[in-house]
Amino acid sequence: MQRPSGRTPDSLRDIRITRNFTCHAEGSVLVEFGNTKVICTASVEDGVPPFMRGEGRGWVTAEYGMLPRSTGTRMRREATSGKQGGRTVEIQRLIGRSLRAAMDMDALGENTIKIDCDVIQADGGTRTASITGACVALADAITHLKSKGKVKGEPLKRMIASVSVGIYNGAAVLDLDYPEDANAETDMNIVMADDGGIIEIQGTAEGEPFSEAEFAAMLTLAKKGIQDLNEIQKAALAD
Amino acid sequence: MQRPSGRTPDSLRDIRITRNFTCHAEGSVLVEFGNTKVICTASVEDGVPPFMRGEGRGWVTAEYGMLPRSTGTRMRREATSGKQGGRTVEIQRLIGRSLRAAMDMDALGENTIKIDCDVIQADGGTRTASITGACVALADAITHLKSKGKVKGEPLKRMIASVSVGIYNGAAVLDLDYPEDANAETDMNIVMADDGGIIEIQGTAEGEPFSEAEFAAMLTLAKKGIQDLNEIQKAALAD
Amino acid sequence: MQRPSGRTPDSLRDIRITRNFTCHAEGSVLVEFGNTKVICTASVEDGVPPFMRGEGRGWVTAEYGMLPRSTGTRMRREATSGKQGGRTVEIQRLIGRSLRAAMDMDALGENTIKIDCDVIQADGGTRTASITGACVALADAITHLKSKGKVKGEPLKRMIASVSVGIYNGAAVLDLDYPEDANAETDMNIVMADDGGIIEIQGTAEGEPFSEAEFAAMLTLAKKGIQDLNEIQKAALAD
Amino acid sequence: MQRPSGRTPDSLRDIRITRNFTCHAEGSVLVEFGNTKVICTASVEDGVPPFMRGEGRGWVTAEYGMLPRSTGTRMRREATSGKQGGRTVEIQRLIGRSLRAAMDMDALGENTIKIDCDVIQADGGTRTASITGACVALADAITHLKSKGKVKGEPLKRMIASVSVGIYNGAAVLDLDYPEDANAETDMNIVMADDGGIIEIQGTAEGEPFSEAEFAAMLTLAKKGIQDLNEIQKAALAD
Amino acid sequence: MQRPSGRTPDSLRDIRITRNFTCHAEGSVLVEFGNTKVICTASVEDGVPPFMRGEGRGWVTAEYGMLPRSTGTRMRREATSGKQGGRTVEIQRLIGRSLRAAMDMDALGENTIKIDCDVIQADGGTRTASITGACVALADAITHLKSKGKVKGEPLKRMIASVSVGIYNGAAVLDLDYPEDANAETDMNIVMADDGGIIEIQGTAEGEPFSEAEFAAMLTLAKKGIQDLNEIQKAALAD
Amino acid sequence: MQRPSGRTPDSLRDIRITRNFTCHAEGSVLVEFGNTKVICTASVEDGVPPFMRGEGRGWVTAEYGMLPRSTGTRMRREATSGKQGGRTVEIQRLIGRSLRAAMDMDALGENTIKIDCDVIQADGGTRTASITGACVALADAITHLKSKGKVKGEPLKRMIASVSVGIYNGAAVLDLDYPEDANAETDMNIVMADDGGIIEIQGTAEGEPFSEAEFAAMLTLAKKGIQDLNEIQKAALAD
Repeated sequence: MQRPSGRTPDSLRDIRITRNFTCHAEGSVLVEFGNTKVICTASVEDGVPPFMRGEGRGWVTAEYGMLPRSTGTRMRREATSGKQGGRTVEIQRLIGRSLRAAMDMDALGENTIKIDCDVIQADGGTRTASITGACVALADAITHLKSKGKVKGEPLKRMIASVSVGIYNGAAVLDLDYPEDANAETDMNIVMADDGGIIEIQGTAEGEPFSEAEFAAMLTLAKKGIQDLNEIQKAALAD
Repeated sequence: MQRPSGRTPDSLRDIRITRNFTCHAEGSVLVEFGNTKVICTASVEDGVPPFMRGEGRGWVTAEYGMLPRSTGTRMRREATSGKQGGRTVEIQRLIGRSLRAAMDMDALGENTIKIDCDVIQADGGTRTASITGACVALADAITHLKSKGKVKGEPLKRMIASVSVGIYNGAAVLDLDYPEDANAETDMNIVMADDGGIIEIQGTAEGEPFSEAEFAAMLTLAKKGIQDLNEIQKAALAD
Repeated sequence: MQRPSGRTPDSLRDIRITRNFTCHAEGSVLVEFGNTKVICTASVEDGVPPFMRGEGRGWVTAEYGMLPRSTGTRMRREATSGKQGGRTVEIQRLIGRSLRAAMDMDALGENTIKIDCDVIQADGGTRTASITGACVALADAITHLKSKGKVKGEPLKRMIASVSVGIYNGAAVLDLDYPEDANAETDMNIVMADDGGIIEIQGTAEGEPFSEAEFAAMLTLAKKGIQDLNEIQKAALAD
Repeated sequence: MQRPSGRTPDSLRDIRITRNFTCHAEGSVLVEFGNTKVICTASVEDGVPPFMRGEGRGWVTAEYGMLPRSTGTRMRREATSGKQGGRTVEIQRLIGRSLRAAMDMDALGENTIKIDCDVIQADGGTRTASITGACVALADAITHLKSKGKVKGEPLKRMIASVSVGIYNGAAVLDLDYPEDANAETDMNIVMADDGGIIEIQGTAEGEPFSEAEFAAMLTLAKKGIQDLNEIQKAALAD
Repeated sequence: MQRPSGRTPDSLRDIRITRNFTCHAEGSVLVEFGNTKVICTASVEDGVPPFMRGEGRGWVTAEYGMLPRSTGTRMRREATSGKQGGRTVEIQRLIGRSLRAAMDMDALGENTIKIDCDVIQADGGTRTASITGACVALADAITHLKSKGKVKGEPLKRMIASVSVGIYNGAAVLDLDYPEDANAETDMNIVMADDGGIIEIQGTAEGEPFSEAEFAAMLTLAKKGIQDLNEIQKAALAD
Repeated sequence: MQRPSGRTPDSLRDIRITRNFTCHAEGSVLVEFGNTKVICTASVEDGVPPFMRGEGRGWVTAEYGMLPRSTGTRMRREATSGKQGGRTVEIQRLIGRSLRAAMDMDALGENTIKIDCDVIQADGGTRTASITGACVALADAITHLKSKGKVKGEPLKRMIASVSVGIYNGAAVLDLDYPEDANAETDMNIVMADDGGIIEIQGTAEGEPFSEAEFAAMLTLAKKGIQDLNEIQKAALAD
C-alpha cells in the first residue's frame, strides 16, 4: 500500500504550531498539519452566559469557519448564505465539547473563553488540526487570565489533541490528507488527553461497514499520533 | 450499581415497532424504546437532486425533529425560531449517513427516499430509536418501489440498527433512558449492520476521559443490543 | 348529492379524543376527526411575556405544525425552510385567538399556557380538529394548575369547539374531509362556545360568491356539529 | 350610543379613490377611508409562476405592508426584522384570495398581476380599504392589458369591495375607525361582489361570543356599506 | 449637450417639501425632486439604545425603503425576501450618518429620533431627496420635543441638504434624474451644511475614471444646488 | 502635530504584498498595511450569472469578512448571526465596484472572478488594503486565465490601489491606523488608477463638516500614497 504522500502508515504530516500569530487575541495560534492551516484564537470575556450566572463556574465555547477559497473549489461564504452549514455546526460542537473536557470550570470561575478556528487552507483534517491548535491557544488565554489575577488554581486539567485515522486501500493510516480522506473506506476522528484518556471517538463507514479489528488498528495508530502531537504542543508552549 | 429503571446493565427497554402507523407515507413506523416514541416515515420521490442526475444512482436523506412538548420542559419550535438547532442538524446528518450505508444506490436507481423522524415523546435515545425505526420504514418504502416496478435487484443491502451505551455510576450500561443519559460519564451511540459490521461510532466523555477498557465493555453491550434490535426489526417486517 | 365518504350532509366523521396521549405535557390530547389526527399539548409556564408583567393576567398562545409526511405528498419541513408558511401562521393565530376567547385571563393569573397542535395525519379539517382537541388539553392544564394551587377561581369560562362546513356539489355539508375540501365551492370554519355563542366565523368563496341563504344553511349545520363535539369533549373530560 | 367620530351607525367615513396616484404602475390608486390611506398598485408581468405554466390561465397575487410610522407608535420595519409578521401575512392572503374571486383566470391568460397595498397612514380598516382600492387598480391594469392586446374577453368578472362592521358599545356599526376598532366587542370584515354575492366573511369575538342576531345586524350594515363603496369605485373608474 | 429633461446643467428639478404629510409622526414630510417622491418621517422615542444609556446623549438613526412599484419594473419587497439589500443598507447608513452630523447629541439628551425614508415614486436621486426631506422632518420633531420641554438648548446645529451631480455626455450636470443617472459616466452624491461645510462626498466612476477637473466642476454645481435646497427647506419650515 | 505612530503626515505604513499566500486560489495575496493584514483571493469560475449569459462579457464580484478576533474586542461571527452587517455590505460593494472599474469585461469574456477579502488582523484601513491587495490577486487570476487560453486580449485595463486619508488633530494625514481612525475628524477613502484617474471618493465628516481646503489637502496626500502603492504592486507582480 502506497500513500499518495509517500508517508508510512503511522506518520503524521509536518506539524507546526506558531503562537502569537495575530496580535489582539489572548491566545492566537497558527496550526499546520501539512497543507492544512488553521488560525485558532482564544478570546477571554468577563462573565458567563445568563443561564450560568451566579454558579461560580466558567464557560468555553467554539466556532469554526472556512475561508471561501480555503478549498480547491470556492465554497459559498456562510455569512452570505445566512446560516452555517450542517458540517460546520457539527465540527464546532465537537471542538467546543472536546475543549470543555480539558477544563476545570470551577477553577476558571465566571469567565468565558471563546475559541475561533478559521481554516485558511484546507487539505484534510481541519477539525483535528483545529482542536490541537485551539488547545494551545486556550493554554495561552489561561496564562493571560492568571497573569491578571482573574483565576486561581489551574483551570486547564489536561492538554488534549486530536488526529484522524482511517482505512485507506485496506490499510489503517494516520492523519489523512485530502486525497486519502476523499477515498477512505472509513474515517475516524479521535480526541485524547495527554494521559491517554479518550475524550471523543467519531468513526464513520464511508462505504462498507468496518470490523472491530480495523477499529483496533486505527485506535493504535491514533494513540501514537496523539502522543506525538502532545509533544509538539508542549514544545510550542515551552518556547 | 442500580439503574434507575431497575434494568440489568445489558437490558434494552421494551422495544416496539408499529408499521403503517400513518396512512400516506410509503413507509410509516412508530418506534418505541420504552417511553421514547418516534414516528419514522419514508417518502418516495421520483428522481434525484440536480447534482446527481444522469448517473443512474439513487439518494436517501433524513430529517429529524422533536415536537415542542415531547420533552419535560417545552422547547422552542424550530420552525418558529427560523432554523434547526445544532443538535438537530447533527442528529439528522447521522441518521441519513447511517441509512445510506444500508443501501445499494445503483440498485435504487434515480429515486429519492426522504426519511422523517419526528419525536413525539422523548426519554433518551431518540437518535438510536430513529435509526432503528427508520430502517424498517425504509424497507417498506423499498417494497413499495419494487411493487411498482421502479427498482430492480435489491437496494437494501443490509438492515441496520442503533443503540446507545454509556458509563453510568462507573459501570457500562445498555440503552440509556433520560435519567441515566443526563448523569452518564460517557455516552456512546453505535450503529451496526445485521452482519456485525460497524457503521458509526460516536463516543463522548461527558466528564472525565474514558479508557480503552471502558470502551471495550460498552462495545460488547452494544453488539448484543443491536442483535436483539435486528431480531425485533425482522419480526416486525415479517408480520 | 352523494358525499365521497357516504356520510349524510349533517354527519360528523368518527370523532375520538384521547387524553394523556404523551406523558410530559400538563395537557396532552390526540384528537381524531376521521383520518385527521392531531396531537394537542398544553404546556404550563410560570409568568407571562414581558409586556404583560405586573398586570395580574395570564396568557394563552398557540402554535401549529404538520409533520412533513402527514399529507399525501411530502411537504417541506418548516424548520428547514427557515420560516413558517402563511397558512401555518394564519391557522395558529386562529387557534390562539379562539382559545383565549374561552378564558378568563384574570382568573388565570400570571401564568402562560402554550398550546401546540401538531398534525400527524391530515385528511381535511386540521384547524377545526386542533381547536376542538386543544380545548380539552387546555382544560387538563388548568386542572393541573388548580391542583398546584396556582390559580383560584375558574380560568376556563366555557368550552369551545370548531367544525368546518361548506357547499359541496351545491349542497351544504358538515365536517369536510380532504376530497370534499379540495372541491368545495365554499369553505367555512366556525368556532363556537358550548352556550351557542359565536367566537369566530371564517367563510371563503373558493369559486363563485355564496349567498346569504347558503350561509344560513351552513351555519345551521355548524351549530349542530359543534353541539355534538361539545358532548364528546365533555365525555372525554369525564373519563 | 355615540360613535367617537359622531357618525351614525350605518355611515361610512369619507371615502376617496384617486387613480394614477404614482406614475410607474399599470394601476395605481390612493384609497382613503377617512384617515386611513393606502397606496394600491397593480403591476403587470408576463407569464405565470412555474407550477402554472402551459395551462393558459393567469394569476393574481397580493402583498401588504405598513410604513413604520403609519401608526400612532412606530412599528418595526418588517424588512429589518427579517420577516413579515403574522398579521401582515394574514392580511395579504385575504387580499389576494378576494381579488382572485373577482377574476376569470382563463380570460386573463398567462399574465400575472401583482397587487401591492402599502399603508401610509392607518386609522382602522386598512385591509378593507386595501381590497376596495386594489380592485380599482386591478381594473386599470386590466384595461392596460386590453389596450396592449394581451387579453381577450373580460378577465374582471365583477367588482369587489370590502368593509368592516362590528359591535361597539353593544350596537352594530359600520366601517370602524381605530378608536372603535380598539374597543369593539366583535370585529368582522366582509368582502362582497357588486351583485351582492359574499366572497369572504371573517368575524371574531374580541371579548364575549356574539349571537346570530348580532351577526345578522352586522351583515345588514355591511351590505349597505359595500353597495356605497361599489358606487364610489364605479364613479372613480368613470372619471 | 442636451439633458433629457431640457434643463440647463446647473438646474435643479422642481423641488417641493410638504410638511405634516401624514398625521401620526412628530415630523412628516413629503419631499419631491421632480418625479422622485419620498415620505420622510421623524419618530421621537424616549431613551436611547442600551449601549448609550446614562451618558446623557441622544441618538438619531435612519431606515430607507422603496415601495415595490415605486420603480419602472416592480422590485421584490424586502420584507418578503427576508432582508434588506446591499443598496438599501448603504443608503440608510448614509442618511443616518448625515443627519447625525447635523445634531448636537448632548443637547438632544437621552431621546432617540428614528427617521424613515420611504420612496413612493422613484426617478433618480432618492437618497439625496431623502436626506433633504428628512432634515425638515427632523427639525419638526425637535420642535415637538422642545414644546414638550424634553430638550433644552438647540439640538439642531445646522440644516443639511444633499444633491447628486454627475458627468453626463461629458459635461457636469446637477440633480440627475433616472435617464441621466442610468447613463452617467460619473455619479456623485454630496451632503453639505447650510454654512457650506462638507458632510459627505461619495463619488463613483461608473465607466472610466474621472479627473480632478471634473471633480471640481461637479463640486461647484453641488454647492449651488445645495444652497438652493437650503432656501427651500427654510421656506418650508417658515410656513 | 504628532501622529501616534510617529510617522510623518505623508507616510504610508510598511506595506507588504505576498503573492501565492494560499495554494488553491488562482490569485492569493496577503496584503499588510502595517498591522492590518488581509488575505485576498481571486477565484476563477466558468460562465457568468444567468442575467448576463450570452452577452460575451465577464463579471467580477467581491466579498469581505473579518475573522471574529481580528479586532481588539471579539466581534460576533456573521455566519452565526445569520447575515452580514451593514458595514460589511458597504465595504464589499465598494471593493467589487472598484475592481470592476479596472476591467475590460468584453476582454474577460464569459468568465467570473470572485474576490474574497478576509481580514485576519485589523488596525485601520482594512478596505483600502483589501482593494490594493485584491487588484494583485486579480492580476494573477487573469494571468492564469491567459495561460489556459481562456481570454484573449487584456482584461485588466489598469492597476488600481486605495488609501485612506483624514484630518487628525487638525492636519491632513495619510493611511490612518486604528488609533488615528478612531479619533479623526474626517475620514476619506480614495481609489485611484495608476494613471491618476479617480475611481471612487468617499469622504465623511465624523464630527464637524470639513472645508474644500481640507478636502484638497487630503486629496494631495492620497495621490502621493496611491502612486507609492502602485509601485509596490508592480514590484510584487514582477517577482
